[in-house]
Amino acid sequence: MAMISKRNLHCPVARSASVVGDRWTLLILRDLFQSGVCRFQELLRSLEGIAPNTLSARLKTLEAKGVVERRFYEQHPPRAEYLLTEKGRKLGPVIRALYEWGEKHGPKTSA
Amino acid sequence: MAMISKRNLHCPVARSASVVGDRWTLLILRDLFQSGVCRFQELLRSLEGIAPNTLSARLKTLEAKGVVERRFYEQHPPRAEYLLTEKGRKLGPVIRALYEWGEKHGPKTSA
Repeated sequence: MAMISKRNLHCPVARSASVVGDRWTLLILRDLFQSGVCRFQELLRSLEGIAPNTLSARLKTLEAKGVVERRFYEQHPPRAEYLLTEKGRKLGPVIRALYEWGEKHGPKTSA
Repeated sequence: MAMISKRNLHCPVARSASVVGDRWTLLILRDLFQSGVCRFQELLRSLEGIAPNTLSARLKTLEAKGVVERRFYEQHPPRAEYLLTEKGRKLGPVIRALYEWGEKHGPKTSA
């Protein structure tokens, strides 16, 4: 995802934003918090409008950052499912805060 | 910013993500929480690497969403400064949660 400049390396908000500062990423996390475990196709269906390669890229980044774990539930053919790691579950307060703000102040119309 | 699909209109997380689901936006909010009022040039300096037109676009979106207010501190030539609205200040828990996660779990290296 985004590069972090030297100065922003020292800012905790910037460090978080470099991991979750992306709309699709936040929705992937929401789904994983909600469902515990999600298959690729389930995420694809839930995140209406996301391109499969975008979803795939976001999941790879989250895996590389240690936030999401990929697990195979079938070997032939290989089929993966995704879940939060311990570090990923610690993002709960972020998703909760977004939920609460969105409920009261989020836009009600598409724009 | 991003379009919200019909289904996601009902999800508070998606509604929030449509406003703040962007790395630069989160850093703008961080600066406004930290400083109270920021001038364009101050934001530009703080958000190392952001293009002026990107910053301008993010601020316009935040203003349109009712999160940020633009105020003129000079008329000739017109010079603006930015501050959070009441609705924007309610995003405090989001920024705080990002701060806390970043402090403990955020990446320490640029990537």
